[in-house]
Amino acid sequence: MPVFRAPRDRAIAVFDSGVGGLTVLAALRRRMPREELVYLGDTARVPYGTRSPQVITRYAMNNARFLGSFDPKLLVVACNTVSAVALPALSAALSVPVLGVVEPGAAAAARVQRGHVGVIGTSGTVRSGAYQAALARLCPGARVSAAACPLFVPLAEEGWTEGDVPREAAHRYLDGLVAAGIDTLLLGCTHYPLLRGPIAAAAGPGVQLVDSADSTAEAAAALIRERGVARETEGAGSERLFVTDLAEGFGPLARAFLGRPAPEPVVVDIS
Amino acid sequence: MPVFRAPRDRAIAVFDSGVGGLTVLAALRRRMPREELVYLGDTARVPYGTRSPQVITRYAMNNARFLGSFDPKLLVVACNTVSAVALPALSAALSVPVLGVVEPGAAAAARVQRGHVGVIGTSGTVRSGAYQAALARLCPGARVSAAACPLFVPLAEEGWTEGDVPREAAHRYLDGLVAAGIDTLLLGCTHYPLLRGPIAAAAGPGVQLVDSADSTAEAAAALIRERGVARETEGAGSERLFVTDLAEGFGPLARAFLGRPAPEPVVVDIS
Repeated sequence: MPVFRAPRDRAIAVFDSGVGGLTVLAALRRRMPREELVYLGDTARVPYGTRSPQVITRYAMNNARFLGSFDPKLLVVACNTVSAVALPALSAALSVPVLGVVEPGAAAAARVQRGHVGVIGTSGTVRSGAYQAALARLCPGARVSAAACPLFVPLAEEGWTEGDVPREAAHRYLDGLVAAGIDTLLLGCTHYPLLRGPIAAAAGPGVQLVDSADSTAEAAAALIRERGVARETEGAGSERLFVTDLAEGFGPLARAFLGRPAPEPVVVDIS
Repeated sequence: MPVFRAPRDRAIAVFDSGVGGLTVLAALRRRMPREELVYLGDTARVPYGTRSPQVITRYAMNNARFLGSFDPKLLVVACNTVSAVALPALSAALSVPVLGVVEPGAAAAARVQRGHVGVIGTSGTVRSGAYQAALARLCPGARVSAAACPLFVPLAEEGWTEGDVPREAAHRYLDGLVAAGIDTLLLGCTHYPLLRGPIAAAAGPGVQLVDSADSTAEAAAALIRERGVARETEGAGSERLFVTDLAEGFGPLARAFLGRPAPEPVVVDIS
């Protein structure tokens, strides 16, 4: 029998194409220690960034439908590609408020930029133009240059976050942006903070790196506060972790993104 | 109304997780110019090599079910990961003969090896032990060493087939095999022939490279000949290409694997 739960006691639902969004989950937890968090990683169909807008939207709808069964008070789209490509479709289809990472990430970059923002992300994210549009609105005087970096996701998932290969890949992807004179670099993919070392080295000391996890968590906390649905129960909130596939090596990878051991994952078939 | 077609006039169906299997399609066409070929690339869910055996088997069954609607006389599994992980399940579930790439690839390596075979493939392929088992049977005196190379698929799909990044990646993956003294290197993934340059350079001149596309086509031709179902109609056979997603850049990528312009792809939703 379904139990009625007051809106303030309902969960915040989060999904990503895989494990990258665990950086956002960690940031949400830091900002909102009492909230119940439910995370879905679509590890059976990761990566999304190289797929068409139609397929990205279909997968995002599958994920949202699964999380809808938890009757959440807020849905956080922790995936940059989905946020860039499918947020309007999700918002139109769902009654729950939907928050993506593009707007908070762009706002964070707009605050620190000094005239020229570089944006990096998957092919899907960069091609959507979502970051470019948000920055044009938030800092209309700034120049924006974007570059897709499709290999950064598999590099991070392979755990090759330092050494020759990521260093050369970072140069190949970023040298054009650096030559163009960017002063700020927005990491428009939740995987990229794991490659912060080679990315920062290729960008050079004059470029400020920005990622969206913290600013997204800040925006989520503000949203539930404004709506009067922040959880007030004493004690730490719970965390549940669902994945669509559990391949070998999941644990260490999840830990790398979450910054601590992950909760025991439950495998679900949502396709 | 379904039209009855004599077995010899039915198609040979081929599937892969994506475009890599087009190397096998090209080899089938070279061996069997008159046959009707139907190819499905599951581009919406590629890559398979990093996923669990359960999910790989589920996706393979989806693909086989779709191709079953063409009433083929033979199903060629052009994906090494599926061949290594799910061939028994496919053969048990289907009434059509099923041919994978592992057995023909292992046979080709067994013929040229001089005592020590290296096998490279995705994590799923290497972990399955299918190549190792086939080689143990086909050349029981030989030593076999295997290494998973998960980044080679995204490198090939990104088109980074020469330069610093693939060269360093090839060294990182292959130096251990070379130090162990392999004399033959079996490319146990249809993507790897695109990286033949850096792979051959890292392997060194003393190592013979073997890939399974040609030997699989040879085995397919022998199979339909033995069963008396080779097509005898005059003129060139047709080719149909289905994909589960059509992202930007498909055409050039398909051309790189097929070695010529690909037929116009038709997008299907099989999930």
